Amino acid sequence: MTQNSKLALVSLAAFVFTCAAYAQDQLPSWNDGPAKQAILEFVKATTTQGGPQFVPPEARIATFDQDGTLWVEHPMYTQVMYCLERVPELVKARPELKDKPPFSTVLELLKGDRAAMEKLNMKDLEVIAAATLTGMSVEDFDVEMTRWIGQAKDPRWKRPYTELTYQPMQELLRYLRANGYKTYIVTGGGQDFVRVYANQTYGIPPEEVVGTAGETKFGYDKNGRPFLTKEPKLLLNDNGTGKAEGIHLMIGRRPFAAFGNSTGDRQMLEYTKAGDGARLAMLVLHDDAEREYAYGPAQGLPDTKVGTFTQALYDEAKKNGWTVISMKNDWKKIFAFEP
Amino acid sequence: MTQNSKLALVSLAAFVFTCAAYAQDQLPSWNDGPAKQAILEFVKATTTQGGPQFVPPEARIATFDQDGTLWVEHPMYTQVMYCLERVPELVKARPELKDKPPFSTVLELLKGDRAAMEKLNMKDLEVIAAATLTGMSVEDFDVEMTRWIGQAKDPRWKRPYTELTYQPMQELLRYLRANGYKTYIVTGGGQDFVRVYANQTYGIPPEEVVGTAGETKFGYDKNGRPFLTKEPKLLLNDNGTGKAEGIHLMIGRRPFAAFGNSTGDRQMLEYTKAGDGARLAMLVLHDDAEREYAYGPAQGLPDTKVGTFTQALYDEAKKNGWTVISMKNDWKKIFAFEP
Repeated sequence: MTQNSKLALVSLAAFVFTCAAYAQDQLPSWNDGPAKQAILEFVKATTTQGGPQFVPPEARIATFDQDGTLWVEHPMYTQVMYCLERVPELVKARPELKDKPPFSTVLELLKGDRAAMEKLNMKDLEVIAAATLTGMSVEDFDVEMTRWIGQAKDPRWKRPYTELTYQPMQELLRYLRANGYKTYIVTGGGQDFVRVYANQTYGIPPEEVVGTAGETKFGYDKNGRPFLTKEPKLLLNDNGTGKAEGIHLMIGRRPFAAFGNSTGDRQMLEYTKAGDGARLAMLVLHDDAEREYAYGPAQGLPDTKVGTFTQALYDEAKKNGWTVISMKNDWKKIFAFEP
Repeated sequence: MTQNSKLALVSLAAFVFTCAAYAQDQLPSWNDGPAKQAILEFVKATTTQGGPQFVPPEARIATFDQDGTLWVEHPMYTQVMYCLERVPELVKARPELKDKPPFSTVLELLKGDRAAMEKLNMKDLEVIAAATLTGMSVEDFDVEMTRWIGQAKDPRWKRPYTELTYQPMQELLRYLRANGYKTYIVTGGGQDFVRVYANQTYGIPPEEVVGTAGETKFGYDKNGRPFLTKEPKLLLNDNGTGKAEGIHLMIGRRPFAAFGNSTGDRQMLEYTKAGDGARLAMLVLHDDAEREYAYGPAQGLPDTKVGTFTQALYDEAKKNGWTVISMKNDWKKIFAFEP
């Protein structure tokens, strides 16, 4: 065989291999259906050079809600679990809080008296959040949160919370990034909280996490070293209208695709769809009580205060060409650890 | 010649070409000296695989002040010029402001009565800024600002403001990016203002511009289309301590390199240098009255309210191993348009 024919063979093999790789399903955990179809069509339309809906790579922005969209949010947001589980350490440092509600209530609750959970109202949760998420340096919070997320476990699956991410959404994140999209998290959860694990869990670096954020305060320690303290003062409530505002503040461009699962994501999806050209808006509907949870109250699913998906939101989605993802029908697999 | 020797020759040629490209000076507008040396050493230390100060590519963050660091800020910040030059349009839309100070003062001033400038105090400027930078949609502001920056000219050089960027700093931005650094602008100027031209002028996309930011408010127009209105309420004062706070808010990582030119950049540089490993902190000193401007009051240069570089800042820089860049001595060329 001549050198030239060898080269030709190698080129051919490379070509065949490339085609095979392209033919491979990039979204293997998605069932064939309208949701998967919508994703594939959107990516094709926005990445086809010379096509009428082509989007230049630098403008390819996709935004993802986190709780209930990328990972499990029931029975309670993971960040709330963090705040509750921080209370024992907190009262160790500040014993005067030990017998004071709502801290005393949380201590009972953690002993196993789950009924005590009912006694916590929104005001209580705010007091607990302020006491456990602020008043320390940014670095101290990072250390504490890194420790917690490394060992805390979800009570149902007995696995780290970071394993409770949805495999189809992980594939979607990777598929969009492989097609030149920057994938941002835009969460109602705490920005500093999510940044701790987003890189390892989703491949999303800190600067691509937009979330609810409090002020920080610059100061110096006794050695003159500057540091930032987390202050109990809200800067951005990244939920509802705040998600569109947060996107403008932190990203400064309108997304071409947005993904959510609750009324808190409505304005983000509206804002995304209001742009020109191809825009993708999708909502995850939790309709799989067996493999995950079932809640709405859209479509007659059980009502909930955690990640509410109203019938009005469902109707708006249908009216405006947003895609509702049925966990039950559209997802072949929900978690990576499933057999 | 056999196919193999042809291949060997091609490889050799590619190798030689690569070496030649590397040997080329990446910072040709910088004179050899301590400033250029500090940059080259920092980049080498942080990008040498296996070296003790190696920084993984995803953590390579560099932050740049804009006014006085990347482009000319004298005799007055470009954004202030925008606000003043917007006043005629503003009084056309709102005639009741025509005879009311400070708007009437600005109208006089724009007719050429430069002495009237003296009558504007900080309070006046705030009133004018609120009236010209807020109260419109984000899109309307973008359109107006794009129009203005495309035709406004600096009075001394008679060139668009976007041509008054410093060639050595442009080279530095490109050099850092070529070495895997993300180059952020962290400016006391308006975030929305700078985002309009940063991509074209500096190669920095909107999401990598951190600046002083006001709130926006989500709403719907009469056709039900959502839009954001710029509100006259300050969210982030990205100056002084606000620069370190803004970096945490918007980027969420400590920079490895930071560049500034005035007391408003002090905390950003302190915060940067407080990190572990190799960190680069540099300040541009405007000591070239002939080619640009001379102001301090550091080192006996004339005092100024615009971009003040105090002797205390100079002393802090010298004490802590920050590098002061002398425009006069370190920069071979200041503007790209110089012959």
